[in-house]
Amino acid sequence: MTALPKLLERLRAPDLTAGAEAQRWLDQLTKPRGSLGRLEELARRLAEIAGRCPPDVAHPVIFTLAGDHGVVDEGVSAYPQVVTAQMVENFLRGGAAVNVLARHVGSRVVVADLGVAGPLPEHPDLRAMRIRPGTRNMTRGPAMTPAEARAAVEAGIELVESARGLGLDIIGTGEMGIGNTSAASAMVAALTGASVEEVTGSGTGVDEAGRRRKVEAITRALRVNQPDPADALDVLAKVGGFEIAGLVGVILAGAAHRIPVVVDGFIAGAAALAAVRLKGEARHALLASHRSAEQGHRHVLDALGLEPYLDLGMRLGEGTGAALCIGLAQAAVKLLREMATFKSAGVSDRPAGDDPA
Amino acid sequence: MTALPKLLERLRAPDLTAGAEAQRWLDQLTKPRGSLGRLEELARRLAEIAGRCPPDVAHPVIFTLAGDHGVVDEGVSAYPQVVTAQMVENFLRGGAAVNVLARHVGSRVVVADLGVAGPLPEHPDLRAMRIRPGTRNMTRGPAMTPAEARAAVEAGIELVESARGLGLDIIGTGEMGIGNTSAASAMVAALTGASVEEVTGSGTGVDEAGRRRKVEAITRALRVNQPDPADALDVLAKVGGFEIAGLVGVILAGAAHRIPVVVDGFIAGAAALAAVRLKGEARHALLASHRSAEQGHRHVLDALGLEPYLDLGMRLGEGTGAALCIGLAQAAVKLLREMATFKSAGVSDRPAGDDPA
Repeated sequence: MTALPKLLERLRAPDLTAGAEAQRWLDQLTKPRGSLGRLEELARRLAEIAGRCPPDVAHPVIFTLAGDHGVVDEGVSAYPQVVTAQMVENFLRGGAAVNVLARHVGSRVVVADLGVAGPLPEHPDLRAMRIRPGTRNMTRGPAMTPAEARAAVEAGIELVESARGLGLDIIGTGEMGIGNTSAASAMVAALTGASVEEVTGSGTGVDEAGRRRKVEAITRALRVNQPDPADALDVLAKVGGFEIAGLVGVILAGAAHRIPVVVDGFIAGAAALAAVRLKGEARHALLASHRSAEQGHRHVLDALGLEPYLDLGMRLGEGTGAALCIGLAQAAVKLLREMATFKSAGVSDRPAGDDPA
Repeated sequence: MTALPKLLERLRAPDLTAGAEAQRWLDQLTKPRGSLGRLEELARRLAEIAGRCPPDVAHPVIFTLAGDHGVVDEGVSAYPQVVTAQMVENFLRGGAAVNVLARHVGSRVVVADLGVAGPLPEHPDLRAMRIRPGTRNMTRGPAMTPAEARAAVEAGIELVESARGLGLDIIGTGEMGIGNTSAASAMVAALTGASVEEVTGSGTGVDEAGRRRKVEAITRALRVNQPDPADALDVLAKVGGFEIAGLVGVILAGAAHRIPVVVDGFIAGAAALAAVRLKGEARHALLASHRSAEQGHRHVLDALGLEPYLDLGMRLGEGTGAALCIGLAQAAVKLLREMATFKSAGVSDRPAGDDPA
């Protein structure tokens, strides 16, 4: 483990100067002050994260990381494990929801195999970084060894480092992995202290009996592994997953390079929570894209202290919510860059000091 | 008044067949059923409105209509009346928020002067349809004569008819008019029976004293004019505005041609409410873009029975919320058009009948 400690040292507080500059500029644009609501906050935060105003968000990359989960043996998912590999192929052909939404906002999608169980063909657009063909069944012992988990985190860091060469100024986090809501729920329960019952939803759509099986499997996994809530890498290794660990690396690398990280839904949120527990400053780089329909998500958002920009009842993952929010981020930055000021447009501003309290 | 009655006769119920077809198709795409949440509902509604699946939303037009309001004499706005004309010029130069957000989603903006008070230069992109230089002060008598209000509605119809020639498959409604939240609040109070207090907010940002002046002015206007809640044209003429009446025409024409109408915020919402009261079938064409920070908006949404797609604390008008929602509508339709099916992608679907209840 060489890259991670060095990276963590680079993480810094946000640049409040650039944020204040963005707000000063927003207040001169031809609109009542504050009337663009959260789009203004979004523009300000993007400036703070990047440390410059106006920020750039013209080169988005969504990192969609895939991995399989041994816990599927417990009957926790509505879909068979083979779907993870099949969906990776779908990503590579451009036919999945994340591909469509990424194209819609002009984002590249980087697809990486961190730990898929089944065979995958070689493909020029697939980053083959498989550490192991799926995690072990966490109800019987640790999902990953500490070394495997660290290797996955470092693979995520490497993905960001190499994507920077082609231009990268805003990151979306995405994932695919049958069974990974179970891993995420286990992580969120361990890291926040919330009950397993509260943080466990129906994932891709199991019925109530399936959800009970998930709750039982997660409860067993936590009892068997006793992850240390104060050690995020321990939690990640014991009850996480390869793609989730990879996202921890993506998030930390983004934060280290002052690149805004748009966190997708519940599973990406569990990765964000682990990243923030590893280094609190990572939080400053995070934007919560949407409120997932998965019930544990609000615990993640509360723990991160983030308010999502969208609330559309989505629960797909892949980076789909992140893609839509990247579209909003681009809109927010265009407002900052392209709107006329009261002065440039010759529009009468209200008298200074007349603002409502 | 010739165009309006003929138009109202064309309004029909939505095409549930096309909506069901959209849902059947959505259920075959490579994602758990329903997991795209309100994007799926949006795709389905767009199909229902257009009467075909997949619908087209590649040619959006935002109609930003401007008019002035005599009620500004009562001190109801934070900005001077001249700002209406200045902002129209800003729209024509492309420097306003709606221009930026419209470009972001690939939408044209049609700017029309329905009743601006101050002089405006000739401009190839300005539709000069001024009926009168601003409404009369509604606290002293009707804002418009019935003939003026009808003329404004018909001007809105004409705007849609002529925009259809260049391609038009989704409409956004926008407006600009210093003082027009007072007109909208008066209309909403008259049409819904809500109290003036409940439906009156701070508009562009008046302080609490300014809001009290608004409440008093609106209360006086309703007492003096006694608009008939059962006659939307009477309400529109007595306490509405030229740009609001124009939007009523835009909305009715959109509905008549089965073109989805994305309603912006509070003021456009008041126009939508009047349109629906004129002909109930108009409701089927409406999509609520966002939840405005203006406090009366929830009464409009409740009365229309619509749930907005975005909630970003915006309160700018112009069509800015509509523009963002048009972006979501395009995303929803692209999902319908571009995603692979389980069959085409060779992805294993869950067993049929295994859906949670």
